[in-house]
Amino acid sequence: MINVVELIERKKRGQALAPDELRALLGGFLSREVPDYQMAAWLMAVVWRGMTDEETLALTEAMVASGATMDWPELDRPTVDKHSTGGVGDKTSIVLVPLMAAAGAAFVKMSGRGLGHTGGTLDKLEAIPGFQCELPLEQMRAQVARIGCALVGQSPELVPGDKQVYALRDVTGTVDSVPLIASSIMSKKLAAGARSIVLDVKIGSGAFMQTREDARILANALVRIGNQAGRQTRAVLSAMHQPLGRAVGNALEVREAIDTLRGDGPADLWALTLELGAQLLEMTGLAPSRAEGEQMLIRLRDSGAGAAKLAELIAAQGGDARVVEAPETLAAAPVVRPFAADADGWVAAADARTIGDAALGLGAGRMTKADAVDPAVGVEVLARIGDRVTAGQPLATVHARTDEAADAAFARLRAAFRLSPESVPAADEPFEIVR
Amino acid sequence: MINVVELIERKKRGQALAPDELRALLGGFLSREVPDYQMAAWLMAVVWRGMTDEETLALTEAMVASGATMDWPELDRPTVDKHSTGGVGDKTSIVLVPLMAAAGAAFVKMSGRGLGHTGGTLDKLEAIPGFQCELPLEQMRAQVARIGCALVGQSPELVPGDKQVYALRDVTGTVDSVPLIASSIMSKKLAAGARSIVLDVKIGSGAFMQTREDARILANALVRIGNQAGRQTRAVLSAMHQPLGRAVGNALEVREAIDTLRGDGPADLWALTLELGAQLLEMTGLAPSRAEGEQMLIRLRDSGAGAAKLAELIAAQGGDARVVEAPETLAAAPVVRPFAADADGWVAAADARTIGDAALGLGAGRMTKADAVDPAVGVEVLARIGDRVTAGQPLATVHARTDEAADAAFARLRAAFRLSPESVPAADEPFEIVR
Repeated sequence: MINVVELIERKKRGQALAPDELRALLGGFLSREVPDYQMAAWLMAVVWRGMTDEETLALTEAMVASGATMDWPELDRPTVDKHSTGGVGDKTSIVLVPLMAAAGAAFVKMSGRGLGHTGGTLDKLEAIPGFQCELPLEQMRAQVARIGCALVGQSPELVPGDKQVYALRDVTGTVDSVPLIASSIMSKKLAAGARSIVLDVKIGSGAFMQTREDARILANALVRIGNQAGRQTRAVLSAMHQPLGRAVGNALEVREAIDTLRGDGPADLWALTLELGAQLLEMTGLAPSRAEGEQMLIRLRDSGAGAAKLAELIAAQGGDARVVEAPETLAAAPVVRPFAADADGWVAAADARTIGDAALGLGAGRMTKADAVDPAVGVEVLARIGDRVTAGQPLATVHARTDEAADAAFARLRAAFRLSPESVPAADEPFEIVR
Repeated sequence: MINVVELIERKKRGQALAPDELRALLGGFLSREVPDYQMAAWLMAVVWRGMTDEETLALTEAMVASGATMDWPELDRPTVDKHSTGGVGDKTSIVLVPLMAAAGAAFVKMSGRGLGHTGGTLDKLEAIPGFQCELPLEQMRAQVARIGCALVGQSPELVPGDKQVYALRDVTGTVDSVPLIASSIMSKKLAAGARSIVLDVKIGSGAFMQTREDARILANALVRIGNQAGRQTRAVLSAMHQPLGRAVGNALEVREAIDTLRGDGPADLWALTLELGAQLLEMTGLAPSRAEGEQMLIRLRDSGAGAAKLAELIAAQGGDARVVEAPETLAAAPVVRPFAADADGWVAAADARTIGDAALGLGAGRMTKADAVDPAVGVEVLARIGDRVTAGQPLATVHARTDEAADAAFARLRAAFRLSPESVPAADEPFEIVR
């Protein structure tokens, strides 16, 4: 039997615990032998003192061992995975997954639902009539063997321990710890079984990490866990000061993802998709270099292979694949109103967090897990930081269920946009790669 | 309803909570509305970030408010109290309480039982045949009105919250926090109602605080709480590198306390008693100065008034007061063996902690709360740091129930004593007063 108080005391003094001690602690918590209050004290001590790489890896692997794991011996193609730390308007997975499958990779992307200002890929996909995110395991395996990809919900059989630990962190003020965040993210990636993993770590007001330095620390932690666990892992640091692309809201985002696969998407979304995909293609060896990976992805987009793969995926998961040819048939909101600039100037801020809150207020997201999501509503952001605009020019379009809801979104957008009388540089920064 | 997570988060970031927030948090915990795991996380955040004076006072007063409080309007004498942070061989209360009562103060000393290497005053007193530590409240009040003193157990009606918080701290590695320790100690002193309080904060291997700096920090925290709460409060920093006095063990210590009241006690015990008592006498105004307080105490000892008061106290609490005249009638152990120096030299260490453990092993203390205590056994320490000794000279006398127990104590004493071939200065340091 482990002496839990001694483990807490040692972590409190800044000492590292041994892998078998962390396994025993987590195992004891999950089997209810270690009470919540001891786990809570240990979690706060971890927030305080951090964990070594060895500890973080051991905790991650203990989390993986708390449930089922997947592997893919039947596949003759390399397995890839991707995780984003969450942002506003991030529909990258819907573009990247079919392109990577078209490039010859196997890509099972497990996603979550949105909460607060951050959207969730599952909510977006369910804007497609008939689309099923919850697939029986065997059906999903067969689909991946046949078409190379799946876009599904997190399987409850994988890493059940993460849910239990997260539930306790959520109510004990112990969420914001890099090793705890990293082990939570990476345990799910490791359990899902892909051999090459790319992590999109976002920086800015709409992201979990507000500064480049914090994002870099998290990216390094994630990449070290992945590599130490024998997976090829890289992270891409990308900006989330303003929303990614133009669309914020479920059907609007699916439509923008389809547009992007058809060569007509916003530049920032396409650039991020290319970077994440090229890194994966280089890691898997499907492309000999990052640059050639990028060329491959451009060809697969321009040939229509990516869009065709998305249609295949939608059809395989019970959805109406005609949306890929006719995205205008997706749910549309009854009230569509432009939000106009009140002066001439340059866009100095189009705050991702506040725009996310505007979309949330319209019904595109949920405040609590029980809330329903309205697929049709949202915000289209028409002006980016650095753009020159004139008074009366639309900065955004609001898609609302009612006029009152649109008014409330306007109030939020007034706080989100800031115009400067002087010229402002564009906020786009080169991607930073952590490996 | 308070947002507990927000309170935890703020303490985690090093911010101070408001007094009403701390009251709500503690109240919620005691009424079981705030779950253990949130309290545990907050406690660890307090260990990490500390608390301001205002927070510590608010928590202390909230602890006091968790139960009954005492006051003493019927008394025409000043009320005093004393607390020691615990050491080895510390029988000061048994000397100080009757002397202070003889000097005209009212002194209700609530004490605890020993645990681990630290002895408890209650266990010592129960070495006196018939002595009752648990008195009904009305009986205790009448006794104090009549004879000016009582030596009793901590009343469960005072500060019940402290017990609940301490039980959680004990199992979550959150004991060693100065503001938590200070609020626990001072809540009991404030609830007991005395207007003048002296705190004996010990430094050294046998004490909770190992260094003078740590002891000073705790002393300052204790004194600030007391003064802010409107009580005259001072602390005396005293050394606990070696046991206080010679006797370690219950009947042995009672006998030494009686010897001290009769003018025949060890110098260090008498010096500490004088310092604590003189500070109290000055605070109450019973003596115009510390120096005159000291003279008062010496006179009360030399006249036999202190010993007579102890006999009165013992009789009032059902004990056999004849022990004051004939301390040799207290329980004696069947095996009494000298522990001799194995070389010539100077005593460089007579480690309080290790000697405490030797007495504990003999049965003088308890490892767990359920253990029974043997009143007769213990260790008499005959050599002090700095003493010159010759090979074969007894360094200590072991009082044991069996020869096997004595052998085990000898093994511990070999580790406790260290002899140096060079001369070693005495370890006695001047008392440091914190006010």
